[in-house]
Amino acid sequence: MTHDCSFLEDLPLADDQHSVAGGQRDSHAADWGAEQLGAGVRPDAVVWPESTDDVSAVLAAATDRGVPVTPYAAGTGLEGNAVPARGGISLDLTRMDDVRDYRPDDFQIDVGPGIIGSAVDEYVASDGLFFPPLPSSGNISTIGGMIATDASGMQTVKYGEVADWVLGLEAVLADGTVVQTGSRAIKTSSGYNLTELLVGNEGTLAVVTEATLELAGRSAQIRGGRAIFETLEDATAAVSEAVRTEVDVARIELVDGLSARMANAYLGTDLPDAPMVFLEFHTNHGIEEEIELCRTIFEERDVARFELSADDAEMDDLWRARRELAYAVATYDADLEPLHPGDVTVPISSYPEIVRETRRLADEHDLLIPCFGHAGDGNLHYSVLVDRDDPDHVALGEAVYAEIVDRALELGGTATGEHGIGQGKREFLEAEHGSGAVDVMKRVKRALDPTGTLNPEKIFPETATEVRVCENDDLEGDG
Amino acid sequence: MTHDCSFLEDLPLADDQHSVAGGQRDSHAADWGAEQLGAGVRPDAVVWPESTDDVSAVLAAATDRGVPVTPYAAGTGLEGNAVPARGGISLDLTRMDDVRDYRPDDFQIDVGPGIIGSAVDEYVASDGLFFPPLPSSGNISTIGGMIATDASGMQTVKYGEVADWVLGLEAVLADGTVVQTGSRAIKTSSGYNLTELLVGNEGTLAVVTEATLELAGRSAQIRGGRAIFETLEDATAAVSEAVRTEVDVARIELVDGLSARMANAYLGTDLPDAPMVFLEFHTNHGIEEEIELCRTIFEERDVARFELSADDAEMDDLWRARRELAYAVATYDADLEPLHPGDVTVPISSYPEIVRETRRLADEHDLLIPCFGHAGDGNLHYSVLVDRDDPDHVALGEAVYAEIVDRALELGGTATGEHGIGQGKREFLEAEHGSGAVDVMKRVKRALDPTGTLNPEKIFPETATEVRVCENDDLEGDG
Repeated sequence: MTHDCSFLEDLPLADDQHSVAGGQRDSHAADWGAEQLGAGVRPDAVVWPESTDDVSAVLAAATDRGVPVTPYAAGTGLEGNAVPARGGISLDLTRMDDVRDYRPDDFQIDVGPGIIGSAVDEYVASDGLFFPPLPSSGNISTIGGMIATDASGMQTVKYGEVADWVLGLEAVLADGTVVQTGSRAIKTSSGYNLTELLVGNEGTLAVVTEATLELAGRSAQIRGGRAIFETLEDATAAVSEAVRTEVDVARIELVDGLSARMANAYLGTDLPDAPMVFLEFHTNHGIEEEIELCRTIFEERDVARFELSADDAEMDDLWRARRELAYAVATYDADLEPLHPGDVTVPISSYPEIVRETRRLADEHDLLIPCFGHAGDGNLHYSVLVDRDDPDHVALGEAVYAEIVDRALELGGTATGEHGIGQGKREFLEAEHGSGAVDVMKRVKRALDPTGTLNPEKIFPETATEVRVCENDDLEGDG
Repeated sequence: MTHDCSFLEDLPLADDQHSVAGGQRDSHAADWGAEQLGAGVRPDAVVWPESTDDVSAVLAAATDRGVPVTPYAAGTGLEGNAVPARGGISLDLTRMDDVRDYRPDDFQIDVGPGIIGSAVDEYVASDGLFFPPLPSSGNISTIGGMIATDASGMQTVKYGEVADWVLGLEAVLADGTVVQTGSRAIKTSSGYNLTELLVGNEGTLAVVTEATLELAGRSAQIRGGRAIFETLEDATAAVSEAVRTEVDVARIELVDGLSARMANAYLGTDLPDAPMVFLEFHTNHGIEEEIELCRTIFEERDVARFELSADDAEMDDLWRARRELAYAVATYDADLEPLHPGDVTVPISSYPEIVRETRRLADEHDLLIPCFGHAGDGNLHYSVLVDRDDPDHVALGEAVYAEIVDRALELGGTATGEHGIGQGKREFLEAEHGSGAVDVMKRVKRALDPTGTLNPEKIFPETATEVRVCENDDLEGDG
């Protein structure tokens, strides 16, 4: 589907703020997940807004003309979230990467959506502050993208997810209306919580143009390390028990034996070929007591080694393996490619069960499925490796992938803990939420974006046309 | 406005589940705030649902017939939130007060909306767990009411507000559709965050019929106490600085000198006639260090006394004065009555400023305005005392009340930190959020409740009729 985007010439944009060049259109049809998903349509044009006014002008004009608009930034999404499904305009927010205001006395910072996560940390570091929920990709992905998917990361077990650290937003609706949500107060009961409605909306309800983030102070005591187990069952049980005992841990990450082999092959490291748990403790008091409590629980699960790192360099080596696992998985076997990564999350007491099920399915079907992730959140990352040249093998991999999701849902969990639905997990939406809740989501979508301009065909399994029953209704008549 | 509710006879409800008796209608036209507000219309009938099916049947039938439905429970709201504004049905949820499921391994409990907050704490106490965000009224108010207003309380400075502890909801829409929101996983990026949209909706979007709550473990170390200051300026500055220094405090409450006098008159206590800060520390390690850090900060603000309690009984006395302040204020002077209580919340660095402004306005207009509240959240409770027989005095009080809200908004704060908008704060909604965000809220309202059945005339300043532009549109056509 091709959309005429020549109207961009008439908007108050500089020449370097829009392009129909093939290279730009290609690069905005890709992200970290689109190729694996076979998703992604080239946008007809790319626009780089530099202000809220730019965003508003583009959205109003595009909505008038029925041209879809898909927000884009770092392209690190894993579900094709920010890759157009119907062409139109790719709205690249990376130039809106400024710090607008910083209020260290209130632990608050106002930033543009295009700022890189680690740039926020650098900006506030001299005050001893940081933005706790950064995902593992935080040194390349943007705050706007994190808000779009309600991202989370290694420190979520202690500090929570992105939604917990967003106080307010400025956002632009499809019709160009600019809205402010939230408050600088740390709590409010005034009206509907539009901030939380927009966090995780994947650019389908509005385009975020500014975010007010909360910050936290760095802990006085930080220690990291790793534990090696004999069996995966023991490793997952140990994590579950540590979290349920409320060990004050800031990171508690699983790496299974297969993932360790893959990391060794990619990084040239010599991690043991065994299930490991990576740990980091952040406290102001009593770090030794917390570590000992953790050690005691792990020893009850026959931990083989429990090593606390001595210095920062050793810590960096340990975490490097964990951080680069996604790359290691992708390059492990030249004949096999991973399906887009799984991201199920279950209640912590069910974490051993979901890992056991995944391992059982891998064994039963003779598939390579490395397992790792934010174990303390009950969040399992898994990649099903398949031979792309063998359609039967791909179909088998997809079926096993889906069976793991189904099992997570049976356990009371979610299809996606942090990556969002995008184009990759739409088939699971109704199974997770039921038709009633999905219908409410669609009603909200129609209410805020009645013409279906914003990021069509994402989240909901139906096509945008089916969602757009209110098109041309004068829903904004009394605005 | 009278509504014919005889259709209730035809629903599958037992005889004792609905009533048109005058006494019941009267009691459901009252809450803690309605009389002060001059708000509250008698419902035409009261219904006591005992199941989700009951709620669904009543809502579907009422929507069919254009009869408004206002959810009700303990009647402890302060803004007339749960008191009908247009008659119709009062839906009293107090019989749905059961524990549906309890999963201590996951720190989760599923409860009916009518359960009293403290009953949740009692249910889980033997496992060392508790529900942290209970408001001060938690021993008489219901979980459903707390969710309706996104309540918070004394421990919010450490643990957050109700929204932070609700994982999922079952709720019924105006048309009778039952929806499930959220997940038992502690994080999810799947679809729109309907849970957070419904927390704080004040019964205007849906009726909550079940809530999945998160629980926390009780701290190993708990100490409480109070600090007495020479000046209110010092007390508020000390609180602000302690919070900004990240002292690990679980409660940090202000009581000004006037409030202390009122508490003495009501309780027969002998609190000093001076600004006080009530404290409670919850930690697992290092409580002495946290207390000393707090003491150091307070000493820099010339604290006159800094007393840590020795035993539970003394703690109870200290906190009793704080808990019962609202009653003390109401009974202080037979000739004066409080306007409905103020509940502004500002960024913590601005807390001294909002208290200073309130004191200045009280002095300038010779008004009694006791100030107290959850200082650590930046949350100021204030009551403007007026002579109800003197219209000029009432008008003056209302003007000063509003001026305090305006000042809080100028400081980046909110008109209501925890009580909700209800009928009492509608005039401030647009000033706080701007017309863009209020229009979005109305769009959401129309999308979920197109006929305006649910709790009409709350939150939005316009009448329900003006909000109902979509009435009779077949918005649910593709449900």
